[in-house]
Amino acid sequence: MTRYELEDRLLHGGDYNPDQWLDHPEILEKDLELMKKSKSNTFSIGMFSWSQLEPREGEFHFEWLDKVMDDIYSIGGNVILATPSGARPAWMSKKYPEVLRTNDKREKMLHGGRHNHCFSSPVYREKIAIMNQKLVERYGNHPALFMWHISNEYSGECHCDYCQANFREWLKNKYGSLKSLNDAWWAPFWSHAYSDWSEIESPSSIGETMVHGHNLDWKRFVTHQTIDFYEHEIKDLRRLTPEVPITTNFMADTHDLIPFQSLDYGQFAKHVDVISWDCYPAWHNDWETTADLASKVGFINDQYRSMKQKPFLIMESTPSGVNWHDVNKMKRPGMHLLSSMQFIAHGSDSNLYFQWRKSRGSSEKFHGAVVDHDNSEENRVFQDVKAVGEALEKIKEIKGSYKAAKVAILYDWENNWALNDAQGFSNASKRYPQTLQEHYRYFWNHDIAVEVVTSEADLSKYDLVIAPMMYLIREDVMARFASFVSQGGILVSTYITGYVNENDLTYLGGWPQQLQEIFGISVKETDTLYPNDRNQLRYGAQTFEVKDYCTILELGTAESIVYYEEDFYAKTPAVTKNNYGQGQAYFIGARTGLDFLEVIYDQIAKETTLANSWVIKGDKEVSVQSRDFDEESYYFVMNFSESNKMIEVASESLDLITNTSKDCQLELKPYEVLLLKLKQN
Amino acid sequence: MTRYELEDRLLHGGDYNPDQWLDHPEILEKDLELMKKSKSNTFSIGMFSWSQLEPREGEFHFEWLDKVMDDIYSIGGNVILATPSGARPAWMSKKYPEVLRTNDKREKMLHGGRHNHCFSSPVYREKIAIMNQKLVERYGNHPALFMWHISNEYSGECHCDYCQANFREWLKNKYGSLKSLNDAWWAPFWSHAYSDWSEIESPSSIGETMVHGHNLDWKRFVTHQTIDFYEHEIKDLRRLTPEVPITTNFMADTHDLIPFQSLDYGQFAKHVDVISWDCYPAWHNDWETTADLASKVGFINDQYRSMKQKPFLIMESTPSGVNWHDVNKMKRPGMHLLSSMQFIAHGSDSNLYFQWRKSRGSSEKFHGAVVDHDNSEENRVFQDVKAVGEALEKIKEIKGSYKAAKVAILYDWENNWALNDAQGFSNASKRYPQTLQEHYRYFWNHDIAVEVVTSEADLSKYDLVIAPMMYLIREDVMARFASFVSQGGILVSTYITGYVNENDLTYLGGWPQQLQEIFGISVKETDTLYPNDRNQLRYGAQTFEVKDYCTILELGTAESIVYYEEDFYAKTPAVTKNNYGQGQAYFIGARTGLDFLEVIYDQIAKETTLANSWVIKGDKEVSVQSRDFDEESYYFVMNFSESNKMIEVASESLDLITNTSKDCQLELKPYEVLLLKLKQN
Amino acid sequence: MTRYELEDRLLHGGDYNPDQWLDHPEILEKDLELMKKSKSNTFSIGMFSWSQLEPREGEFHFEWLDKVMDDIYSIGGNVILATPSGARPAWMSKKYPEVLRTNDKREKMLHGGRHNHCFSSPVYREKIAIMNQKLVERYGNHPALFMWHISNEYSGECHCDYCQANFREWLKNKYGSLKSLNDAWWAPFWSHAYSDWSEIESPSSIGETMVHGHNLDWKRFVTHQTIDFYEHEIKDLRRLTPEVPITTNFMADTHDLIPFQSLDYGQFAKHVDVISWDCYPAWHNDWETTADLASKVGFINDQYRSMKQKPFLIMESTPSGVNWHDVNKMKRPGMHLLSSMQFIAHGSDSNLYFQWRKSRGSSEKFHGAVVDHDNSEENRVFQDVKAVGEALEKIKEIKGSYKAAKVAILYDWENNWALNDAQGFSNASKRYPQTLQEHYRYFWNHDIAVEVVTSEADLSKYDLVIAPMMYLIREDVMARFASFVSQGGILVSTYITGYVNENDLTYLGGWPQQLQEIFGISVKETDTLYPNDRNQLRYGAQTFEVKDYCTILELGTAESIVYYEEDFYAKTPAVTKNNYGQGQAYFIGARTGLDFLEVIYDQIAKETTLANSWVIKGDKEVSVQSRDFDEESYYFVMNFSESNKMIEVASESLDLITNTSKDCQLELKPYEVLLLKLKQN
Repeated sequence: MTRYELEDRLLHGGDYNPDQWLDHPEILEKDLELMKKSKSNTFSIGMFSWSQLEPREGEFHFEWLDKVMDDIYSIGGNVILATPSGARPAWMSKKYPEVLRTNDKREKMLHGGRHNHCFSSPVYREKIAIMNQKLVERYGNHPALFMWHISNEYSGECHCDYCQANFREWLKNKYGSLKSLNDAWWAPFWSHAYSDWSEIESPSSIGETMVHGHNLDWKRFVTHQTIDFYEHEIKDLRRLTPEVPITTNFMADTHDLIPFQSLDYGQFAKHVDVISWDCYPAWHNDWETTADLASKVGFINDQYRSMKQKPFLIMESTPSGVNWHDVNKMKRPGMHLLSSMQFIAHGSDSNLYFQWRKSRGSSEKFHGAVVDHDNSEENRVFQDVKAVGEALEKIKEIKGSYKAAKVAILYDWENNWALNDAQGFSNASKRYPQTLQEHYRYFWNHDIAVEVVTSEADLSKYDLVIAPMMYLIREDVMARFASFVSQGGILVSTYITGYVNENDLTYLGGWPQQLQEIFGISVKETDTLYPNDRNQLRYGAQTFEVKDYCTILELGTAESIVYYEEDFYAKTPAVTKNNYGQGQAYFIGARTGLDFLEVIYDQIAKETTLANSWVIKGDKEVSVQSRDFDEESYYFVMNFSESNKMIEVASESLDLITNTSKDCQLELKPYEVLLLKLKQN
Repeated sequence: MTRYELEDRLLHGGDYNPDQWLDHPEILEKDLELMKKSKSNTFSIGMFSWSQLEPREGEFHFEWLDKVMDDIYSIGGNVILATPSGARPAWMSKKYPEVLRTNDKREKMLHGGRHNHCFSSPVYREKIAIMNQKLVERYGNHPALFMWHISNEYSGECHCDYCQANFREWLKNKYGSLKSLNDAWWAPFWSHAYSDWSEIESPSSIGETMVHGHNLDWKRFVTHQTIDFYEHEIKDLRRLTPEVPITTNFMADTHDLIPFQSLDYGQFAKHVDVISWDCYPAWHNDWETTADLASKVGFINDQYRSMKQKPFLIMESTPSGVNWHDVNKMKRPGMHLLSSMQFIAHGSDSNLYFQWRKSRGSSEKFHGAVVDHDNSEENRVFQDVKAVGEALEKIKEIKGSYKAAKVAILYDWENNWALNDAQGFSNASKRYPQTLQEHYRYFWNHDIAVEVVTSEADLSKYDLVIAPMMYLIREDVMARFASFVSQGGILVSTYITGYVNENDLTYLGGWPQQLQEIFGISVKETDTLYPNDRNQLRYGAQTFEVKDYCTILELGTAESIVYYEEDFYAKTPAVTKNNYGQGQAYFIGARTGLDFLEVIYDQIAKETTLANSWVIKGDKEVSVQSRDFDEESYYFVMNFSESNKMIEVASESLDLITNTSKDCQLELKPYEVLLLKLKQN
Repeated sequence: MTRYELEDRLLHGGDYNPDQWLDHPEILEKDLELMKKSKSNTFSIGMFSWSQLEPREGEFHFEWLDKVMDDIYSIGGNVILATPSGARPAWMSKKYPEVLRTNDKREKMLHGGRHNHCFSSPVYREKIAIMNQKLVERYGNHPALFMWHISNEYSGECHCDYCQANFREWLKNKYGSLKSLNDAWWAPFWSHAYSDWSEIESPSSIGETMVHGHNLDWKRFVTHQTIDFYEHEIKDLRRLTPEVPITTNFMADTHDLIPFQSLDYGQFAKHVDVISWDCYPAWHNDWETTADLASKVGFINDQYRSMKQKPFLIMESTPSGVNWHDVNKMKRPGMHLLSSMQFIAHGSDSNLYFQWRKSRGSSEKFHGAVVDHDNSEENRVFQDVKAVGEALEKIKEIKGSYKAAKVAILYDWENNWALNDAQGFSNASKRYPQTLQEHYRYFWNHDIAVEVVTSEADLSKYDLVIAPMMYLIREDVMARFASFVSQGGILVSTYITGYVNENDLTYLGGWPQQLQEIFGISVKETDTLYPNDRNQLRYGAQTFEVKDYCTILELGTAESIVYYEEDFYAKTPAVTKNNYGQGQAYFIGARTGLDFLEVIYDQIAKETTLANSWVIKGDKEVSVQSRDFDEESYYFVMNFSESNKMIEVASESLDLITNTSKDCQLELKPYEVLLLKLKQN
């Protein structure tokens, strides 16, 4: 068995950059001492070491890395060894400018930054192949080797001639003929038909930007080419260490923690052995409550876990603040343990940090780290990290357990690209990923487990599938929706669904027939509102505000749950429910607030067994998440508020963190977290 | 007589792009059916067909266009045939990159978008000449040919070497000697004197931007070169079909519907046979009332009609929403008929749409169209269009009638350019075109017809000429103002008038003597206020707020109508009136709101016969616009509000739209429009 | 003695551009008349005359300048003769494009604007050397020559190959070895280690931007290279007219009047003989009171005076408005005299204007000037200028007097650069220069003289040194702080102090030991707050609001003056005082408003002799500034408000401006200024 398979601890540690301190042996010595004290056991090494590993072309220096590997092994630690392609030495950029990116204006970038390399460049591929081969040959059998970490936060795109040629090749493979491509891109529009493959170039802010099929295929190609580069990187690693798992670290986008926008991780996930990612919530900010943010953290961790439906890794997080938010505030006391446990609660088997030690210079020197410039274990952050390390040791029995969920929310990267690119509606209010977060919120509020899946997912395992704003929807997805509902599933969709096919070509002849059947309605018009426009829905005695989008519907077999109150479509249906086969399909035609979603999903929860039966009396700011083995259940109870909270649960338990028995009344202090194992009666 | 001369219907129809559907003959078939059903009779074809007409260099395909021409003819329709220069095939960009534009940073654009062609490129001129010659030879005698539509929405500029050479040539022709150019551009400033023509280049954001004379001449050159290209395009059309009218579609700028800023349409208008333009108001928005917007629509339609002082064409408008506003909201019921009739009321003989049918892919697929993706006549938009088609048939007797006006508002493109370029005052508050709209509003509110003319216009036909903010004023314009007033006209001008001559050189020796005489005042200082600064004017018991600009005046022969209330110039004149010859000249020294303009223009209306004598009791949200034949008058009565309205008029009438008799009390429902023909007693 | 040494008048006059009017001899004639009438005596000539002096390569025309020199001499005037390098003729840019700048994206700029020249270009250096040699040979002995004015408002940077080579050379000189450079730039971070000098390039938005040491050295190099160019310019002037003083005009940045950000004037000041600068406050704006702005004007004039600790020159100011603010408002009556006298009060021996006469064309034609386009002496501005001229004659006995100060505020350009570049804290709230202005405000409010010095200054002459936000602090500066305090000085510092050394490398091992000793505290954490976050300090019965930054401290020998009220560090020290040697060191850990600074500095003032003893009862909107000779004191009393004010002083006096005796009760009208000489009893 490999070190990875044998490891029974939850992983704790993080990005370690000894290459910055080779002139400071006392620092490297101190690191080992503090690693042990902080209960850290796993370290990512080498992301940006190329200039230390190969300071001049063909001149390699591994001796420092040998020592680091040995040292970590000596304290019982794991090494996640990175390939250094995320940044390259200056000599390479100077000698082979092709390794650098060309931006969309066809300007060759200059050496600098990181992640500034062409994914097609033959030279870059050759250089990284040499490097990676040396790494695997030297360390493939090192006893500390735990996992391979490929490059760093893959992202970005290149428009050089190599990439243009690869793009054309990819298009030829996809379309076979120019006629097919011209059809798919609706090329006669604005005289855009191509007469030769060589005429095709990537989109550019000083050239073509308005052909949606073109834009969509370019984004697909960028994902393809990134994965192709990744596959190139791992070739020798896979060959020589087939048993060592390979990962690369994924990201989120913006402080809203929506899924990363530029790469289709749904595709990329198929190529990694373990999902790992970098999570940086802006705790304690001034625009949302702690619970608001915690729900977003829950959403994206659920999403990334769902990609492989097994435990994932937090590859980077911060013990305190970061350095790249607009405002870099420190975690308040209690938040580090709480937020670390939240990762575990949503299925992570690690909490790894960027970074182990703050660098002394350059742009990340103030990014939160386990070890600060004071080089001390006395400060608050180190003590917080150590407390997490101790807690992780206490709860390690949950390692490998998994979360079950009967609710799926569907996120489709291609739909997101197409919708954002669409000329129409209102750009400021599209907010597809944020809409998913809003739907997710109901389930977070009510402690109901959720998976966030792609439109390729097997839906049969879920009771409820939520697929809002499926502007781009493939025919096979519609067919699978039909099959899911007809076999007893509950499907929820919304406004701005069913517009275009996989090529961003509109469906002709009205709203797709398949959707009409599933939802028992026909969509007539979508009204896009100005920011200050409002409409109302009335449900019983309550009214609910509507904004941004209103679908005007015609009922087929569906019944209307609620009607518009105002405007020329007042008294027409706004939200409908249809019985289709054994299941039901809900269509929410208007953008409402969470208040109305609570009503709809409460109704669905009442009619099913979705509600969390263990939580008798919950609290919207206290999140309960479970992880399970076949015969055992663990409940994380997390107070994401600044107040004391009381909730009531169905059974007595043991808190693993404090080793304390708990009865059914659970009292939590601000930011307090419990990890409860049900008592074996 | 030509088809154009014989046509007695108001035009209804729009941009038709069959070239996108050649693989879908059933769609083309359906089009003909729906054209008839919607009472459409006129179609613009071929704007962006180059890649279908000449898919490979020298390989021409007209067979599909033959059929479209024949088909439209077969249903009694007119074809406005476009030259395809608005976009070019990819093979041309690839083989001859010179056809593409060079931006101001001297970057060659890549193939893409539309309107991305150099106006000087010899190759592009050669290619379009071949194409246009083929079009006129093949279709010049086709019985459906109604009008030529040259290119599409000419705009933009190119900074390539060809254009640089043409710019220098244009300057040589204009100035004769470098000495004259250096004088006009005040070249010694910042050491800008040229010693050789070859040193001159177009303005650039990475080069020269600060020489006003240079900037102004460049803008003039861009208009010149655009017209020169247009003249090149029409050469063979004119030669071979001298009797077929030629137009190109003009535009407005921004959602404020101010005149297009980049080309001097005052010059361009001289080169077209019929003014046609594309009008896209953002109805039902959330920042202004429907009447606010309707007045702006009135302003610009009056302006574009005034260019030739005869009926014009709406070449593009939308049956519903567009796809390129920030928010793309649908027209509410009633608005399509109302807004269509407003075009006619202001002198259009058409309502043509962009677009006949929504395309299936690419960036304009959600732009409003007569035929939606549902390919159906059932939906609300199609029904609205059909209702307009029917109404246009009922009112067709007004075709060719004209609007008389005794009020002219003067808009000068060069003044606008110079004022916007001026370093001084406050950029955010210049708002020259918006100021004209504000003055126009009085006349719209009071149902008084207005023309909006250039400073070249013959003023003698007007009773009142309004010329605000004439920062750049040519000496001959001052002389014509003097002549107009001395012969009995009333002239109104404002703050920021009389600063510079046609080269953007200031007048020396104080405010121009000619203006001093006309207005009977001397301008001492112009105070530019901060956004939160306010002053007050007192008029009788009322006070009026002043912002942005205050002129400090010295009275000559003028009398002061109103004084400043505050600041160090309190108690000095703010608004003056001067008797000059047989007429009067008003000078409004401060920027007021509409409230004060109502006072001033009420006073002027009382002293003249400007007031609308047919409207006994009007309403500010009900617009009355007349069109006339020598012996007949037609009144459009339009309720631009969401309330029922009652107005009183001087005589009984017949509503042509409903064929109903009306007495002098006219009641209108929200958005209702009447077209009243006075009863022949 | 030189004309400069002999001059006993305060300088009045300004930028004179006769080269724009050579075709208008009547204008040049009128200029001489108006110069005399306005009591102007000093004129800067030739800044932008290159295209008049050398219209074609090697063809020189000085005859017009001969006449101007003679004419000004004939009316008793001084000439400040400029070298024309601020802009170049078009022929030069065309023939030698290398003279133009290359921007950070490596784009060669086009001819245009001004200040668009490479500081390294051999051709440009050769051309300006020829020009300057001719100027000094021709005018070095002219009796009107008063001073040399080198170029104009040096600023900007160039990234051409010459500059890259010079940058590398500068780095080689600084670091000696690549190893040293790699260490200083913390190069292993992100694989940034260089293996050859040739790999190094300047920072670029399409290349490297994230290496702080690199950025900081580039900024240092830009200052170095600018001074190097300046030294090249003055070589022959110095050699041939060693006795004629040389200056170049400095600037401020933004409407906040913070010190110019792009060049280290602390270094540049060492190379000029007299500090001169261009001051453009936005009087009467709508976002601050007149006193708010006046205090900022005081700050920066005190700063620029302090550079050489002797009288300086206002080289440019405006008699009215400017043309480049967002809103260009005119000075209200009284403001021109008041604001002119404020310059003198803070140590200027001049009030010179940009510009003497408004140009007729191009971008500065509406910039305020003594002579307007009306060419008249009748207007308000000319009369205001004349009044200032008369006042300057009345008070000329103060010429050469100096201001004494016992308080120093420390401004460090390199600290500002490093802090702004830092990734961390919150960019929007760093505001280092604005923080200094806030501290300065106390002293301005209380009529206490201040110097604003660099960290190289000799501190021993001060009683109080204020050094907020010293993020970058050299070790020698810490040592000099220690020495200053231990010898009895009072030192005040704040949050965000003591982070990095001169290479932007963090101090290791905790807050620097030297600072711990001086302040008797240890800094544990710096909490960065979101914009809406607040904390409170309690001092006696008062509470004070805290925002942006809170330092968490541990007391050593210091005592705590005030504690935080909220958050997890409630009840911990926020502001401390430490006795160190003979002096005291205060540390203000949180960002407070002026209200709390008033408390702290009141306390310090009470314990010392800092308070202004002559002002018995002052007013926060009345500024009192003194200038002194050894045996005489002059008090400027300036009412920066729109109300009448009364203050009480310790002695009777004579107002030099009105030649009126004043008792101890001084009454001032809005904007009134007095210049009081104490009566000799």
